[in-house]
Amino acid sequence: MENRLPQKVTLHEVVLRDGIQNEKTIIPTEEKIRLIERLVNCGTKRIEVSSFVNPRLVPQMADAEDFWGKIERREGILYSALILGEKSLNRAIHCKVPHAGIFVSASETHSQKNSNRTISEARKEVLKLIERAQSAGMEIRAGVMNAFGCAYEGKISVEKIISLVDDLMKTEPDEICLADTSGMANPKLIKEVLVRMREVTGNKPISLHLHNTRGLGLANVWEALRQGVFIFDTSIGGLGGCPFIPGAKGNIATEDTVHMLHEMEIKTGIDLNCLVETSLDFEKFMGKEFPAMVSHLGR
Amino acid sequence: MENRLPQKVTLHEVVLRDGIQNEKTIIPTEEKIRLIERLVNCGTKRIEVSSFVNPRLVPQMADAEDFWGKIERREGILYSALILGEKSLNRAIHCKVPHAGIFVSASETHSQKNSNRTISEARKEVLKLIERAQSAGMEIRAGVMNAFGCAYEGKISVEKIISLVDDLMKTEPDEICLADTSGMANPKLIKEVLVRMREVTGNKPISLHLHNTRGLGLANVWEALRQGVFIFDTSIGGLGGCPFIPGAKGNIATEDTVHMLHEMEIKTGIDLNCLVETSLDFEKFMGKEFPAMVSHLGR
Repeated sequence: MENRLPQKVTLHEVVLRDGIQNEKTIIPTEEKIRLIERLVNCGTKRIEVSSFVNPRLVPQMADAEDFWGKIERREGILYSALILGEKSLNRAIHCKVPHAGIFVSASETHSQKNSNRTISEARKEVLKLIERAQSAGMEIRAGVMNAFGCAYEGKISVEKIISLVDDLMKTEPDEICLADTSGMANPKLIKEVLVRMREVTGNKPISLHLHNTRGLGLANVWEALRQGVFIFDTSIGGLGGCPFIPGAKGNIATEDTVHMLHEMEIKTGIDLNCLVETSLDFEKFMGKEFPAMVSHLGR
Repeated sequence: MENRLPQKVTLHEVVLRDGIQNEKTIIPTEEKIRLIERLVNCGTKRIEVSSFVNPRLVPQMADAEDFWGKIERREGILYSALILGEKSLNRAIHCKVPHAGIFVSASETHSQKNSNRTISEARKEVLKLIERAQSAGMEIRAGVMNAFGCAYEGKISVEKIISLVDDLMKTEPDEICLADTSGMANPKLIKEVLVRMREVTGNKPISLHLHNTRGLGLANVWEALRQGVFIFDTSIGGLGGCPFIPGAKGNIATEDTVHMLHEMEIKTGIDLNCLVETSLDFEKFMGKEFPAMVSHLGR
């Protein structure tokens, strides 16, 4: 049986969260607002606005409350946040965040380093967090970090991912997100995990958060499309990286992904030229070369 | 029916030809020899040594005769050249070149610019060239340039490619090579072309020459593997570019391809660490950053 490709793909823009979170130049709130406006004008439908995290650990996200207060929330656009614990959730509720990602790590080492909790502790806490967020009216993407390998631990078993997703499914989230946190996925593994995943997710939408650390980002997108995935996290310019791997390039680039999809006649609703201009202007603002390829081609 | 992946892939290393041909720093013959030796020591089995071309047009290849004379040809290693016309073939015969690539362009504009011939003229000449090369004892990869699109003309019809390959097949070449000269392929197109191509190529090995111009290099490799391709042109560091597209990055990187294949348990016979060292040393020699990703990751 031939796999049918989706006709339309939704991109979840993460430049303002994963993209900039490790950048040292602190971006003024007004500049973030301008960037969101431009992205929305290009046709972006989902935007991860910020995480709610200790500002001493991630100074770039210190303006989260201010930023959320200043966004003009337009109809038909999904504004999302990343929530990391109880305090984080309280801040998000205060900001009337309508959509949030809540994740558990599949790597014991990463879970300890990232949240100071064992996986076993984290998974219990995450279930409670999701339920509280849902009670507050939020839509939820429930996710697993390091779903395709870990920079510390190497391979992660598919059974482990399935068991974590099985737990998450009990909360009836709107979407399951699998994150390739340190860019270790390959298309054969993407296929293996996605085929097995359907046993527990059924028809629930699965989104993928992919990094292009080893050049495999779009190869993984291609295999995921074949497996029916139609929501992908991307970052303009391919900005973002992995703080654990020196030299690691970032998230898959929104413009490279849009180009690929449009070439294959898959709709995104995004105007590629508009997006490339936005990415190049933001690159100029940041004063460093972004890894995206399509935006750097002369014509 | 599920596509079975090849268990072993052969990489055809093009750094010394496509990789360096547009680089302004002229590489001394001795340095080229050193690079070949190191590549062979890492397990590389096929190397494109040079083209035979007008030295005024491509000064980097001006030492072709000298270079071929100085290579210690080791058993089990395939040393190859790119042949572009009658004079080029005469030089290759003089150098006792054992294996050569001979190509026709599928783009009228590119054919005119690259060889000053219409496709119709070029296809006749190429058939004669192949026959003469075969009479001189050479193994031949017969190929089509711009098989997945053209920087000047955009889309190229599959029928055109099939008709050209059908011609090339009459010479009974050892291999058919499809070149994505300006990096315009996408995995959906790769699949479409390869599925159709089997009508005319039967069991003849098909090799792909891919560029990573728009970040789709390894996505195209993945789809080609699924379609049974087991020979790919790669360049260490991802060196090489497209002279027609300013800002275009190069060929798919050997180290990124080897990493991908090994992660998926497909053998290449190449030692990845050895290859990364070789690539980084050559990068230092060239004094510019190469686009390959795996070689730039810290551990």
